Amino acid sequence: MTVRLSRRYEFFASHRLHSASLTDEQNREVYGKCNNLHGHGHNYEVELTVRGEVDPVTGCVVELALLDRLAEEQILAPFRYRNLNEEAPVFRTVVPTTENLGVEIDRRLRAAWERTFAGGEPRLDKVRIRETDRNICEIAQIR
Amino acid sequence: MTVRLSRRYEFFASHRLHSASLTDEQNREVYGKCNNLHGHGHNYEVELTVRGEVDPVTGCVVELALLDRLAEEQILAPFRYRNLNEEAPVFRTVVPTTENLGVEIDRRLRAAWERTFAGGEPRLDKVRIRETDRNICEIAQIR
Amino acid sequence: MTVRLSRRYEFFASHRLHSASLTDEQNREVYGKCNNLHGHGHNYEVELTVRGEVDPVTGCVVELALLDRLAEEQILAPFRYRNLNEEAPVFRTVVPTTENLGVEIDRRLRAAWERTFAGGEPRLDKVRIRETDRNICEIAQIR
Amino acid sequence: MTVRLSRRYEFFASHRLHSASLTDEQNREVYGKCNNLHGHGHNYEVELTVRGEVDPVTGCVVELALLDRLAEEQILAPFRYRNLNEEAPVFRTVVPTTENLGVEIDRRLRAAWERTFAGGEPRLDKVRIRETDRNICEIAQIR
Amino acid sequence: MTVRLSRRYEFFASHRLHSASLTDEQNREVYGKCNNLHGHGHNYEVELTVRGEVDPVTGCVVELALLDRLAEEQILAPFRYRNLNEEAPVFRTVVPTTENLGVEIDRRLRAAWERTFAGGEPRLDKVRIRETDRNICEIAQIR
Amino acid sequence: MTVRLSRRYEFFASHRLHSASLTDEQNREVYGKCNNLHGHGHNYEVELTVRGEVDPVTGCVVELALLDRLAEEQILAPFRYRNLNEEAPVFRTVVPTTENLGVEIDRRLRAAWERTFAGGEPRLDKVRIRETDRNICEIAQIR
Repeated sequence: MTVRLSRRYEFFASHRLHSASLTDEQNREVYGKCNNLHGHGHNYEVELTVRGEVDPVTGCVVELALLDRLAEEQILAPFRYRNLNEEAPVFRTVVPTTENLGVEIDRRLRAAWERTFAGGEPRLDKVRIRETDRNICEIAQIR
Repeated sequence: MTVRLSRRYEFFASHRLHSASLTDEQNREVYGKCNNLHGHGHNYEVELTVRGEVDPVTGCVVELALLDRLAEEQILAPFRYRNLNEEAPVFRTVVPTTENLGVEIDRRLRAAWERTFAGGEPRLDKVRIRETDRNICEIAQIR
Repeated sequence: MTVRLSRRYEFFASHRLHSASLTDEQNREVYGKCNNLHGHGHNYEVELTVRGEVDPVTGCVVELALLDRLAEEQILAPFRYRNLNEEAPVFRTVVPTTENLGVEIDRRLRAAWERTFAGGEPRLDKVRIRETDRNICEIAQIR
Repeated sequence: MTVRLSRRYEFFASHRLHSASLTDEQNREVYGKCNNLHGHGHNYEVELTVRGEVDPVTGCVVELALLDRLAEEQILAPFRYRNLNEEAPVFRTVVPTTENLGVEIDRRLRAAWERTFAGGEPRLDKVRIRETDRNICEIAQIR
Repeated sequence: MTVRLSRRYEFFASHRLHSASLTDEQNREVYGKCNNLHGHGHNYEVELTVRGEVDPVTGCVVELALLDRLAEEQILAPFRYRNLNEEAPVFRTVVPTTENLGVEIDRRLRAAWERTFAGGEPRLDKVRIRETDRNICEIAQIR
Repeated sequence: MTVRLSRRYEFFASHRLHSASLTDEQNREVYGKCNNLHGHGHNYEVELTVRGEVDPVTGCVVELALLDRLAEEQILAPFRYRNLNEEAPVFRTVVPTTENLGVEIDRRLRAAWERTFAGGEPRLDKVRIRETDRNICEIAQIR
C-alpha cells in the first residue's frame, strides 16, 4: 500500500524582492511594496510530502527522526532567522520569491534525499511553502 | 522548473439550495435546512492554483497584480456581498451548491484566462472553494 | 477555585445591513457593500464563557449537555440557516450588525440562564461572536 | 464536469506506538515518547474526497447525508473516544501509526463504498488523516 | 507600562472521564462517550499569560528561555505523551476534565513561579487550556 | 449596552533583536537566534479592541471605515513591508520585541484616538499583537 505522509516545519526569515535585471521603476511595478529597500519578513511554513510503502514492521513510510534531521540540515539551519538575500548565497543572484525559495528548498532536499536513499524508497513527492495565509507555492514532480 | 502557485481570496455571500426540478418534499430531503426559504450565507474562500515555469528574471510564475485583477473581475465583483440566487444570473436555473459555484467560478476564470494568455503559459491548474471548515470543492483539470 | 469554561458553536446565516432611520445614501455610506439590497451571509461562530466553581465530584463548572441544550434552543434553532432580517423578529427593527447580533444572543441566553440557574452558580460570563476572521464582538458583564 | 468534493470529520482517540516485532530498545528508538507504555491521544481530523460528475438536478457530486452516514458507520462509530490499540481489532497486531490508521480507514470505507455504489459513480478519491498540525497522511488511488 | 505576554505550548495526552463518587450510570450520564472504559486523547494547547513591566534594557516582560524552562518542567515533562489518569498522581483521585487539568497546571506553575520570582514581577496572569477547537478552560486570578 | 468590538489587521515586517546596552554575548544569551546580525521577519497580526455603547441608529460601536483609516495611518503605513529597526525611528533606540512593538502601536493609536474622539466614546480598550502562533502580546488599560 502506497501512501503519502506530510510533515510541516516553520521558520521566520526576511527578504527583499528586487531583480538586478530590472530598472528601479520595473522593480516597483513587479514587486510593489515587497521591493522596499530594507526588506520585510514572514513566518514561513514548509510542508514536505514523502511517498512510499508503509513498512510492515514499524507502520511508517519514513523514519520521522531522519526526516526531521534532513529538514533541520537542509531548510531550518540555512534559513531560520536569516535574511534570505544576505545570508543564503543562492539569493544573491536569484530573487527570493516564494517560487524561487520553493525551488531552492526542493533542490537542496532532493540532493540530500539522493545521498540518503540512493534512488530507492521512500520518494520525496512534494515541497510546499506557505509564505502567508494567501500565498502558497508547491514544487511537485511534474518534471 | 514547473511549479504551482496558489493564492486565496475571500468573499461573503448568501444562497438558498432549492431545485425547481424537485418537489418541496424532495428539496427538504436533499438539502435539509439549506433549503430554508429565506436562505443563509457563508464566508467563502477561493483558492486559485496556477502552474507554469518560473520566470528567470522576476522569479514569478504569474504576475500577482494580474492574477488579483482577474480574481476581482471574475469572482469578487460578481459574488462579493451578493445573494447568489438573486444576483448571479446563472444561479436562477442552476442550484448554487459548492460544486456548482466552483464550476461557475472555474468557467468564468478559464474564459478570462483564455482571453489573457491565449492558451500559453501559465495555465490555470485548479479552482478550490471552501464553503465551511468542513466542505471543500475542487475543480481540477481532470477533463 | 473559580474558573472560566468556553465552548464554541457555529451557524450559517444571511443578513443585510440597512437602517430604516437613514437615507439610502447614508446607508451606503455607513455600511458600504454590506447594504446590498439582497443581503449576503457568514459562517458565524459563537463562544459562550461560563464562570464558576469546579464541582468537586464531576470536575465540571457546568454540565456540558445542559449548556449545549441552552445554545441549541436560544442560538442555533432561531438563527441557523436563517435570513436574520426576515426570520428573527428582533431584526425587523434592529440592524443585524455583529454588535446587535451579540446583544440579542446575550439577551436571549441570559433570560434562559436566569430561568435555569435562578441567579446561582455558574454565571454566564461572556458571549463572543466571530463574524469573519477580522470582525469579533464581545458582550461582557461590563454593565 | 468532474469535480472533487471533500468533507471533514473529527474524532478524539488514544493510541500507543509499539511493535511486537521490535525489542523494547528498538521501539523507543523508532517511536520515541510515542512508545510510552500508557499511551497518549490526539484530535484526529479525517478528510474524505469524492470524485464524480455534478448531478444536473441536485448540483451535488454525492448526497451529503449518505456520505455522513458512511463516515459515521465506518470511521466515527469504531474510533471516536476509543483507545485504538485496545478497541479496534486490527490494531492488536498492526501499529496504529497515522499511516496505518489511514490505510485502515481507507480499507473500511472502500469496502462500504463498493457495497453502496457497486463500482459506479461517484468514486472515493482520497482519504486524508491529520493527527496533529504537523503530521498528515494521505491515502490516494496511487495503486 | 504594564503589558501581558502570552506564549503557547502543545502536548498530546490521553484521559478517561470517570468519577469514583458516581455510579456507572451516573458517569455515563455526566460524561457520555468520554466515560469510555479505555479512554481517548487530545492535542492539548496551553497558553500561559504573564503580566508585568517591559524591561527597558531587553524590551521583554519575562525572559522567554526561563518561561520555556518552567513550562517544560511543570507542564510538558509530566503530561506530554502521558495517560493522565495513570501517570499523573493527582488524577488518580481527581477527574481529568479540562477544568481540573487547568487547575492542576495552574497550581504547579504558581508554585514554581513563587520559587522563581518570590512574589515579585512578572506575575503569572492566566493559564488557558484548549482541549479541542470547541472546549477551552481559563484559570485567571479571579480569586 | 456596552460591548467590545475587535478588528484584525495584518502586516509583514522584519526586525532584529539587539540591545545597545548589552554586550554581544549578553545579546546572544537574551535573544538567541533572534539576535542574528541580518535580522529576520514575521507575519504580524494586530487586533484592535474598541469599547463603547452600540449606536441605536447604526447598530455599531465605531464606524469601521474610521477604524480602518486610523489603522492604516498609525500601523499599516509605518510598519507594512518595513524593516522595523531601520525604518521606524523609535526602534533605533528601543529593541523591537513584540512587547515594544505593542507599546509603540498602542502609543501611536491612543494619540490618534485622542485627536479623533477627544476623550469621548468609543474608547480604545486593547491592542494585541500576534508575532507567531506561539507569541502574543496585549496592551490593555491596566494603567
